[in-house]
Amino acid sequence: MGLPTPPVAQQPFADVAALPLPPRRELSQQPHLASSPRDEALVQLLLQRWGDQVSGLDEARTVEYEVLLSFPSPEHPNLIEVVGPDGAVLHSYLPKEENVTGEQGGPDVVQPYAAYAPPGTPQGLLIYANHGTEDDFQYLFNQGINLQGTIALTRYGMAGRGAKAVNAAKYGVAGVLVYTDPGDINDGRSFPNETFPYSWGLPPSGVERGSYYEYFGDPVTPYLPAHPSSFRLDSNNASGFPPIPAQPIGFRDAEDLLCNLRGLPAPVSWKGALHCEYHLGPGFKSGENFTADSQVKVSVHNRLELRNSSNVLGIIRGAVEPDRYVVYGNHRDSWVHGAVDPSSGTAVLLELSRVLGTLLKKGTWRPRRSIVLASWGAEEFGLIGSTEFTEEFFSKLQERTVAYINVDISVFANATLRGQGTPPVQSVIFSAAKEISSPGSSGLSIYDNWIRYTNRSSPVYGLIPSMGTLGAGSDYAPFIHFLGISSMDIAYTYDRSKTSARIYPTYHTAFDTLEYVEKFVDPDFSSHQAVARMAGSVLLRLSDSFFLPLKVSDYSETLRSFLQAAQQDLGALLEQHSISLGPLVTAVEKFEAAATALGQRISDLQKGSPDPLQVRMVNDQLMLLERTFLNPRAFPKERYYSHVLWAPRTGSVATFPGLANACSRANTPHGSEEWAEVHRQLSIVVAALEGAAATLRPVDDL
Amino acid sequence: MGLPTPPVAQQPFADVAALPLPPRRELSQQPHLASSPRDEALVQLLLQRWGDQVSGLDEARTVEYEVLLSFPSPEHPNLIEVVGPDGAVLHSYLPKEENVTGEQGGPDVVQPYAAYAPPGTPQGLLIYANHGTEDDFQYLFNQGINLQGTIALTRYGMAGRGAKAVNAAKYGVAGVLVYTDPGDINDGRSFPNETFPYSWGLPPSGVERGSYYEYFGDPVTPYLPAHPSSFRLDSNNASGFPPIPAQPIGFRDAEDLLCNLRGLPAPVSWKGALHCEYHLGPGFKSGENFTADSQVKVSVHNRLELRNSSNVLGIIRGAVEPDRYVVYGNHRDSWVHGAVDPSSGTAVLLELSRVLGTLLKKGTWRPRRSIVLASWGAEEFGLIGSTEFTEEFFSKLQERTVAYINVDISVFANATLRGQGTPPVQSVIFSAAKEISSPGSSGLSIYDNWIRYTNRSSPVYGLIPSMGTLGAGSDYAPFIHFLGISSMDIAYTYDRSKTSARIYPTYHTAFDTLEYVEKFVDPDFSSHQAVARMAGSVLLRLSDSFFLPLKVSDYSETLRSFLQAAQQDLGALLEQHSISLGPLVTAVEKFEAAATALGQRISDLQKGSPDPLQVRMVNDQLMLLERTFLNPRAFPKERYYSHVLWAPRTGSVATFPGLANACSRANTPHGSEEWAEVHRQLSIVVAALEGAAATLRPVDDL
Repeated sequence: MGLPTPPVAQQPFADVAALPLPPRRELSQQPHLASSPRDEALVQLLLQRWGDQVSGLDEARTVEYEVLLSFPSPEHPNLIEVVGPDGAVLHSYLPKEENVTGEQGGPDVVQPYAAYAPPGTPQGLLIYANHGTEDDFQYLFNQGINLQGTIALTRYGMAGRGAKAVNAAKYGVAGVLVYTDPGDINDGRSFPNETFPYSWGLPPSGVERGSYYEYFGDPVTPYLPAHPSSFRLDSNNASGFPPIPAQPIGFRDAEDLLCNLRGLPAPVSWKGALHCEYHLGPGFKSGENFTADSQVKVSVHNRLELRNSSNVLGIIRGAVEPDRYVVYGNHRDSWVHGAVDPSSGTAVLLELSRVLGTLLKKGTWRPRRSIVLASWGAEEFGLIGSTEFTEEFFSKLQERTVAYINVDISVFANATLRGQGTPPVQSVIFSAAKEISSPGSSGLSIYDNWIRYTNRSSPVYGLIPSMGTLGAGSDYAPFIHFLGISSMDIAYTYDRSKTSARIYPTYHTAFDTLEYVEKFVDPDFSSHQAVARMAGSVLLRLSDSFFLPLKVSDYSETLRSFLQAAQQDLGALLEQHSISLGPLVTAVEKFEAAATALGQRISDLQKGSPDPLQVRMVNDQLMLLERTFLNPRAFPKERYYSHVLWAPRTGSVATFPGLANACSRANTPHGSEEWAEVHRQLSIVVAALEGAAATLRPVDDL
Repeated sequence: MGLPTPPVAQQPFADVAALPLPPRRELSQQPHLASSPRDEALVQLLLQRWGDQVSGLDEARTVEYEVLLSFPSPEHPNLIEVVGPDGAVLHSYLPKEENVTGEQGGPDVVQPYAAYAPPGTPQGLLIYANHGTEDDFQYLFNQGINLQGTIALTRYGMAGRGAKAVNAAKYGVAGVLVYTDPGDINDGRSFPNETFPYSWGLPPSGVERGSYYEYFGDPVTPYLPAHPSSFRLDSNNASGFPPIPAQPIGFRDAEDLLCNLRGLPAPVSWKGALHCEYHLGPGFKSGENFTADSQVKVSVHNRLELRNSSNVLGIIRGAVEPDRYVVYGNHRDSWVHGAVDPSSGTAVLLELSRVLGTLLKKGTWRPRRSIVLASWGAEEFGLIGSTEFTEEFFSKLQERTVAYINVDISVFANATLRGQGTPPVQSVIFSAAKEISSPGSSGLSIYDNWIRYTNRSSPVYGLIPSMGTLGAGSDYAPFIHFLGISSMDIAYTYDRSKTSARIYPTYHTAFDTLEYVEKFVDPDFSSHQAVARMAGSVLLRLSDSFFLPLKVSDYSETLRSFLQAAQQDLGALLEQHSISLGPLVTAVEKFEAAATALGQRISDLQKGSPDPLQVRMVNDQLMLLERTFLNPRAFPKERYYSHVLWAPRTGSVATFPGLANACSRANTPHGSEEWAEVHRQLSIVVAALEGAAATLRPVDDL
């Protein structure tokens, strides 16, 4: 499918500001935790920028919700204590960052905590449980370790935050500590003089905050917008909260605890970069601050609070098809200063809006379709602002949204582009990336730079950059999984040959400051500029192109790979249970044929002078394809996940998630009842693909 | 909103054939039970007509499914026996119509049966249970009658067919007989010389067949198209089948049984027009064919069979917006000859297609939008053909269908029009009805005749004909409830001042023949013509009008009346439980305002010369409004029902069904836990109305 360049505003993003990006200091100079006064001040800042006479948009307004957030108690900070057998407190740890640069103190720096972990003061022998996966606890159990009533020390990574507590509770564990191992985040470096402010490494006192809630959206108003009058679950009946108290700590404190554990040595793969042997516990060996029978007491005083949270919307009305929306968003709330997360993305958002707003106010440009810029609230607590928005405007957004562009953290590092999205957006990302120069002096386009870092061999295109898929890591989740809107996330990121850090080291800590960005992440802000130009180009292509630049035939490659995995890894097993993959093969073939033929029809149309209705009809086919993969009845236990191709996959085979998961549940000694569900899931996918193909065929081929 | 008359084919239905409508004899001369050879022959007839060179359509094809049907056994007919205490059979009844006109015999006349009732041979004392509602069985129970193991004789009406067996089983009843009381169907007439062929009355041997399945769609492939490879539930695990054997009988046999019952006299309201006192049983008084302890044995030999069932589609491709579909359908399958049900509708379908096909082949007309004519299979077994079709083409139909027009039985009787539908179709039905002459010599329009028979005072329009709402009585059900497509059903019907018959008397019997129609239903076929002209006019208005003739502001009246009922009948109760109707009031007001403003914008556009995209955008708002009322998560236990305004209402208050039902469950001594669900249902409706209003506002008012 051809990709006409935007007809009106050809290259406005040449104008993207060079360093320094103007708003970046304002955005991150103070902590702006969701619903805090500073978060609200940023709402006002956005309203003012988007309402500006010279560089503002057509309209700016807030959409507000009353959402259930979770905070530590300022009066009773969460605390970890080592308690002797006589009840005496031998040692105590206050999870809190050391004030290294002068920005880690002050009342607005929220104490590190596990949001939505319940309050409680469990006390027990300490064990080390690696990443806290189900396998990890099973391993400990298999070693004959009595997990009942213990406190599990786990490290970030592998399992989701909340999952660690869920897994632990299944084994009778009473409380969970989570730390960041320097082996996982600092490429092993752990001494103060090896870490920020001396490098981008996480200081020993740094603690990753985060939401430990298992789902997304406001926890007490699932599927309903969280208006003040909306029905709310009693929070005691809400699901998805950690079942036991949990608390994150820094590796300084973790080392102190872990290096004093007695018991069996941990398996090699469980070892990180702390300066000692890793033992499993339970309990400590005798030592300075510990006695052999001392226990760990975790005091968590988190409390749930209903708070007002605002989304800010900035609107540019479309000139020709105002009822087609390109939505571009990022969250606004941070854990502390959030210079990287999310202010690096908010800076890009504001810079884009400044460029577009200036054109708009000058009267030299107006997009064909409407553009909605969004600054989401309370993302850090579980994508709450964006999810509530999709609940409130479900029908309108689902009918009319062409695509959703997310730029959360815009710059993790300055090596290469990272593009994630559903297959139809690959081509528009590639087109933009080919046109824009990569930061630095290589002279390469973003595309040519990207392909050097991460690539794959496509059966259709040969060697191309690898796009990632979309999980639920940022505000695109409700758009793709709940609404079925083609979505993407764009950022600049690491050279993976140079670091194995799980994520940028100061993520969700009080060390994620502007100084950190200026010193270590993107000193000349050229990667920010590059992402702004990328996102802007993608935005304009989607809003201005006569034909939508969504290449639906790129789904065929995904479907083929899912199909091949099913055939190779599940085919024989399915055959044993008289389940044939034949209908799936046929459905994939039908999809391929219909998508290819539609691409050809669009090419033909582009050669002529199609009338606006003809283009609209084809564009509707392109826009709505992603919707056809939604089936709200496919996964009744998965909140919001309706997309039969991108729902979470827990089964190990890289195929259609419903099929993979059902097979993994059925293929056990007690799974014989589950084979019906395997067949049902197969039929659901077949029906979705056949239904999708039907929407791609000529519209009068009824 | 204005209703431009069709610009191309102004009044083609003046050409609707006068009597006799040509295909009517062919359609009903032989029984054509779903999936029978004759049903398949009619498929070929339709394909041939719609493929005709002179009067055919653009395309005709079948869409086939493999569906689970239920049939009696030709070798072992179902049987009712009276058995003495010694096991001797005292008397036996073979449910079967007497061959009165020569058409009630022959192997193609299926024995009367309760489709999907399980096989079995329950035997027990007979009781009389009126309509078999839950209240009826509760009444018997309250009389101290031991219902355990009894056979319940019930009459048609009030409760659904399957519901009678469900209710009975709850009280331990072992088998159910269902008969048609002459008081309910024949205005009391019951002697052979008072009934067909001497009048339109049901002969004493006539038996109403029917599906006793509780849901609709193929019972073993819920939410999946019933393709041969689709996942199927084990029929033992399928839900919705009657839990105990059931069998319908004629009133001749029912009188014999009922008039010999002993026990308490039945309450006055339980009495029909049989020639005896109605007693409750259990058991018989001594008499000719009965002894005091004789029992009734019901032998049901029904069996489930997977059968091929075809839908036939006839396509007329739209000239301008081929991706907008107006779907018009009726089922093809009958229980026996089905001259009224469904052939009166199929005749209209074929006559319409002949008129349109002739214009099409002449090249003088092509509609703006596409038209899909559908002849559905296996409707009598539970709307199976249409439901499977909506499952297979869910996305395509939901994206693109402007409206669904159903004409099942086109003529129940020849007094007046009956229109049922969702509020947006009222205006297009009214417009057509005002333009077309009513049958007979009154000189009145269909509209002016209609308003004399059934009318109401509208706060907006003053005195207007009363439209009915849509339940699940015909193939519109999956379109409105599952897909959210504005739907309607059109027919000619009774003068209710002249008969209180539940439905036309030979409904679902072997007496529903062409002779019956020609003698008693519509001797000159003028009502058939009137319905064909009505339906044709509605079809053309929907397919040809520049602006869609869907008046969304007519929903406001429904919402107001639901709201008022909630305020008057539930307001105080809700207040006691701290649930405010305030947000609902606001939501209704917002809807009203948005709908009114949209109507005004359309009027303004109509005065100018709007470009095709502007019209398309407004039409999309009109077309998609009904979709905004769908919430597939609102009623998780109701199969297919997702429309928050038209889901089944079991609560007695005429308000939003989710609210009414939840209130009725909560407002009991043990309902305290249910008030949360009341609030949830209220929030669901509020969110739907707010979301709907958002889609009606100007499309760039984001």
